[in-house]
Amino acid sequence: MKISFTRSLVAAALGCVFAFATTLAHAADALPSWNDIKAKQLIMAFVQRVTTKGGKDFVPPAERIAVFDNDGTLWAEQPMYFQLAFALDRVKALAPQHPEWKDKEPFASLLKGDLKAALAGGERALLEIVMATHAGMTTEEFEKIVRDWLATAKHPKMGRAYNEMIYQPMVELLRYLRANGFKTYIVSGGGVEFMRPWVEKAYGILPEQVVGSTIKTKFEMRGGKPVIVRLPEVDFISDKEGKPVAINKFIGRRPILAFGNSDGDLQMLQWTAAGSGARFMGIVHHTDAEREWAYDRNSSVGRLDKALDEAQAKGWTVVDMKNDWKIIFPSKSK
Amino acid sequence: MKISFTRSLVAAALGCVFAFATTLAHAADALPSWNDIKAKQLIMAFVQRVTTKGGKDFVPPAERIAVFDNDGTLWAEQPMYFQLAFALDRVKALAPQHPEWKDKEPFASLLKGDLKAALAGGERALLEIVMATHAGMTTEEFEKIVRDWLATAKHPKMGRAYNEMIYQPMVELLRYLRANGFKTYIVSGGGVEFMRPWVEKAYGILPEQVVGSTIKTKFEMRGGKPVIVRLPEVDFISDKEGKPVAINKFIGRRPILAFGNSDGDLQMLQWTAAGSGARFMGIVHHTDAEREWAYDRNSSVGRLDKALDEAQAKGWTVVDMKNDWKIIFPSKSK
Repeated sequence: MKISFTRSLVAAALGCVFAFATTLAHAADALPSWNDIKAKQLIMAFVQRVTTKGGKDFVPPAERIAVFDNDGTLWAEQPMYFQLAFALDRVKALAPQHPEWKDKEPFASLLKGDLKAALAGGERALLEIVMATHAGMTTEEFEKIVRDWLATAKHPKMGRAYNEMIYQPMVELLRYLRANGFKTYIVSGGGVEFMRPWVEKAYGILPEQVVGSTIKTKFEMRGGKPVIVRLPEVDFISDKEGKPVAINKFIGRRPILAFGNSDGDLQMLQWTAAGSGARFMGIVHHTDAEREWAYDRNSSVGRLDKALDEAQAKGWTVVDMKNDWKIIFPSKSK
Repeated sequence: MKISFTRSLVAAALGCVFAFATTLAHAADALPSWNDIKAKQLIMAFVQRVTTKGGKDFVPPAERIAVFDNDGTLWAEQPMYFQLAFALDRVKALAPQHPEWKDKEPFASLLKGDLKAALAGGERALLEIVMATHAGMTTEEFEKIVRDWLATAKHPKMGRAYNEMIYQPMVELLRYLRANGFKTYIVSGGGVEFMRPWVEKAYGILPEQVVGSTIKTKFEMRGGKPVIVRLPEVDFISDKEGKPVAINKFIGRRPILAFGNSDGDLQMLQWTAAGSGARFMGIVHHTDAEREWAYDRNSSVGRLDKALDEAQAKGWTVVDMKNDWKIIFPSKSK
């Protein structure tokens, strides 16, 4: 007993030294991929304010809720939302089982490689594509489909796996916030079950901290074994006004920090801003045509127009990817 | 630097001694309100198995998800669900603003004190009562209404505040599980926003770990200030087949421990049981007519029939309130 107790003390002491060294390293360079200019300084000053015990802006850890949009905020979204790329690949993979698609829009155009014609049907066409590819299987089967796709599909421009097209500076920001007692949530227009299989490894975000759009599901017994089946019906779209609604439903606390990149994030940013006490509202502005893409007010994907005006009017932090970020994507993988 | 470092070591060592002593104390009497018979022993053996590093049943902390029904499992539910008592009190409070209720069922009967006649309209009548009392205000206004009600309303039989009608042995179980790295969730048929204002203080369960039934809500701007408004429309009923569906949607991991008390919890228990690895399924059986209530197969509130059969067939743990619990409710409050 005595020896093991002494050992515990030594272990604790060593643990402390290690923790201390790690803390120092963190403090010195918690956001190494960010240039040390305005956005980084504002982020770090905010975290300092809300975590300083006894300070007037101190926020208890349980209330340090940080929410992040995903498409265009944590990973790329060009030339099309990656979940749409997934859906199109699934249409091709499933076509042999659906001979009727040859004569049925939007599938017929898609299978001929004419995306524009396929999407000419607007929201209805998109919905048909999503339902045909995201429903009809159990949740476990869908998870495997997503994992298999990520393991094989490559981004058309970058040639990398989609789950490597994440923004290294944002990964560091998420880690830095968690190291400071924040809970980090995704609040995305994308599908919850499309994100859960890979976001823990990519961002360190837990499955229960993924908020997003959902389709209806149904519990049933199959051969004595319970399964949850994905139904071809929209349950909830977590976009625009839907984002604060989803935050209220899933989290039940108002965030103190929110990051988005498009008009779809405006209401989430407004909802965050309207709370009392210190707040941080950030926007990732795609300004780097060379290393990534440059787009904002006139883009059909990730349009940033009203939210950019409001950010400027209200003094929210606009991150200029070209100037604020030393690198965009993680270095080529291990 | 050197001195402060030595100080840190001493502090760390003392911290360890303290943590060690606390752990010992916990282990000795983590569930003091439980008699040391079968149910308590099974619970503690399970926690031991899944937390023993290197053991074959070890579960990493991130996967230690525990789900609990609320009504009849964590707090009482007789003579009627407490949320229904809340709704009835609200009808009385709102009646002056609704002169038309004098001639409109189910309100007319309710206001005459005839609950039976009011509920004769079945689910539709109930829904009308719920919508009239739970919708039409902002989420912040509703939270205040719930808090005010809890501060003044008394249980008709026990004369205590409703949020004191919680089961002390279950409060200890929740605390014990969290001390062992579990995340504790409520998965209730009750309303999420009816529970969030008080469950953190009562059970130590965080707002973001409350899963339940919801009504639709809407984000809107009121005088430049964003609010979320509660609409008179059901969004989701988290009961029976709805419970595993809600678990999948909100948590995204299969629980390894589930506790319920009625047939409404059967599918949640089945879903938990069907995972691989060590599992714990528990049922609170209301067997104590003297200290609480005794009811099961023939009760209209919290009917326990099919789930009791399945518990017996599958060897789930049935907690006998009369024999397993030394006390039911916390001692009269501070």
